[in-house]
Amino acid sequence: MIQVTYEFPAGVDADKHAEIIAIGQTVGSWGAQFSHREAAMKKHMGQVLNTKQLDNNRSQATVGFPEINCENDIGSLLCMIFGKFSLAGPARIIDIQLPVDFGIRAKFGIKGIREKTQVFDRPLIMGIFKPALGLTAGDHAQLLDQVAAAGLDIIKDDEINFNSTTAPTIERVKACRPVIEKYKDLNGREIMYVVNLSGRADKLIDNARRLIDEGANALLFNAICYGYSCLEAICAHPEINVPVFTHPALAGALGGATQGINDYGIDYSVLLGTLMKCAGADAVIYPAHYGTLPFSAETESKICKLLRQEKGKHIPVMPVPSAGIRPGIVGQAMQDYGNDVALNAGSAIFDHPGGPTAGTKAFFEALALVKQSKPIRIAEINDGPLKEALKKWGEV
Amino acid sequence: MIQVTYEFPAGVDADKHAEIIAIGQTVGSWGAQFSHREAAMKKHMGQVLNTKQLDNNRSQATVGFPEINCENDIGSLLCMIFGKFSLAGPARIIDIQLPVDFGIRAKFGIKGIREKTQVFDRPLIMGIFKPALGLTAGDHAQLLDQVAAAGLDIIKDDEINFNSTTAPTIERVKACRPVIEKYKDLNGREIMYVVNLSGRADKLIDNARRLIDEGANALLFNAICYGYSCLEAICAHPEINVPVFTHPALAGALGGATQGINDYGIDYSVLLGTLMKCAGADAVIYPAHYGTLPFSAETESKICKLLRQEKGKHIPVMPVPSAGIRPGIVGQAMQDYGNDVALNAGSAIFDHPGGPTAGTKAFFEALALVKQSKPIRIAEINDGPLKEALKKWGEV
Repeated sequence: MIQVTYEFPAGVDADKHAEIIAIGQTVGSWGAQFSHREAAMKKHMGQVLNTKQLDNNRSQATVGFPEINCENDIGSLLCMIFGKFSLAGPARIIDIQLPVDFGIRAKFGIKGIREKTQVFDRPLIMGIFKPALGLTAGDHAQLLDQVAAAGLDIIKDDEINFNSTTAPTIERVKACRPVIEKYKDLNGREIMYVVNLSGRADKLIDNARRLIDEGANALLFNAICYGYSCLEAICAHPEINVPVFTHPALAGALGGATQGINDYGIDYSVLLGTLMKCAGADAVIYPAHYGTLPFSAETESKICKLLRQEKGKHIPVMPVPSAGIRPGIVGQAMQDYGNDVALNAGSAIFDHPGGPTAGTKAFFEALALVKQSKPIRIAEINDGPLKEALKKWGEV
Repeated sequence: MIQVTYEFPAGVDADKHAEIIAIGQTVGSWGAQFSHREAAMKKHMGQVLNTKQLDNNRSQATVGFPEINCENDIGSLLCMIFGKFSLAGPARIIDIQLPVDFGIRAKFGIKGIREKTQVFDRPLIMGIFKPALGLTAGDHAQLLDQVAAAGLDIIKDDEINFNSTTAPTIERVKACRPVIEKYKDLNGREIMYVVNLSGRADKLIDNARRLIDEGANALLFNAICYGYSCLEAICAHPEINVPVFTHPALAGALGGATQGINDYGIDYSVLLGTLMKCAGADAVIYPAHYGTLPFSAETESKICKLLRQEKGKHIPVMPVPSAGIRPGIVGQAMQDYGNDVALNAGSAIFDHPGGPTAGTKAFFEALALVKQSKPIRIAEINDGPLKEALKKWGEV
């Protein structure tokens, strides 16, 4: 059974709405003409599992749906649990409990990404090419060289860097591959370049294959902009044998409206935790609470837990908190997340006063201090990239 | 240029946020290292076109984006205009102005659907198979026979009726095709059976092809549940040569939160008008304001106008208001919509006291009265299906 919990604002009768969902989102009503089909219809009928009252007259209801009503994919799941009902007024999905083997199993997850990057005992450090647009493929290669020289583990395209004439995606890969090889020869491991996969639903798989043929060793995908169904297709495909990172772009349009006044949409923990995981993502980028985005530590922790869960066929998947990630926060982030995390920084690497190489080094200096249980304080460290970073972006 | 208008609640500085969007959702900032790329970057830069203050300290901003920043498809469009920014706090997209040839041109639209159904001078009458789930393929054929006998123009699957073991989609088509043929021989025209297309993004085209091979003469697609990108792929495909109807399922999760208090998501007129149209849909189902769903006449009218617009390569597309459609409302609906509309009824056809045949006849009786400029009133008509419908569901 698929169990979905809805939350309602004051003024909504949870018992009544739970019934509307259980019946209206499944069989509906039937007349005497089909009384002989009652047994079949009951197999498809939803059921109200419980309802409860919260503070401020808010309420919740959990409804169970038969698995046979959808197709073990997110497209049919979303339609079944929230399709028509989403149009009926304020209601928010806050939790989905799926059968353990629902969906697509990630091919790599935390373990696979660690093997690929050969980093086993610390958080991965990840960067975002900046500026987002307007660079040539050669510029990307040059920036990659600068961060790879300092040992960066992963670098990603900006999520809005599509297949543009200025730097077509395949040209970015072709230009960057020799840099990846150069540092593989030097260090015995590949820096992972997470290339932005784009294109219409019917072109995505071919586009991905072409990028991989040219040496892409990881993909970035804007799962919500294109649809979870596209992500499932990418992750399920046997020839797409590189880790798939997902970006949370557009998640706010579905998940933002939670202020306890009007409740609509779907909770971030479901969008970026439950659904990304069962679509087969290997790593999931989501807003960290260290920056200016209105994300709470509690929401983040829920997402992180859902991604790292081992359940049924599903393996732990890499959380990638992003926004406000800077060297000064590394200690706090490791307290919050432990080791199994990729810390994703844009400006803190690329806008470092000493350039991207120094920006990368600052993170590794910070990691080394945390490993020695030393504080990351301007007053206690020597001059160098970390000190400059702390001066620019603060200590914590 | 792509022009997007955002609305903000009180407390948000529209000028500041417009700048954040124009820069942060395009190039971002760059340092001295790339000062020689300034010309290229400026080509990718967004610009604030205007901002204005509304009542209650609300505000709007319109931002222009270079077309070259996305790929003429909705996946990249949504990421560009609202991706990361959707996560940044309350803001709602209320309008998108696209270049006239952006997107996919519908293959049929109003004209093509009229030719297929051979109905040129009145609204189309459309039904929804009820109950939604639990019927066999043979039951579907039996119901189809009942409504086709009374001359129904179009019938659709319920949007939650997927490819289930009780009545696999292809079996529904196989069972219904002989009924379609029977009435084609009798009446010289085909009733359109809008079959629910489902499956993961990489299977959709093949699934559609198989359904069409077995005689499906129209498709239903839950575009928002699967992603607009999947809809674009379906509508662009040369072998999918039947009209594609889209369902608004899940639109409320993106569009519901508009109460002038918290503003999130994307306006219904954009979701169900602008985006469905430029994805290539031939007919778009959306909630009517005649039922209990919280949809205003104004929102509906906006959607309807966007769908019927002829602009650039785009042809007028069929509006399909749905919810609360009953015989008593036909006069009002024709005043609101005119002729170029499909009136979509579920229970008003299938729960009619005299059964689905009578339910269908009631609508045609109502249409005939409107044509003769006669009121649809219990007191002024003879006993029969329409009178029974008015007694059950009211006069207007």
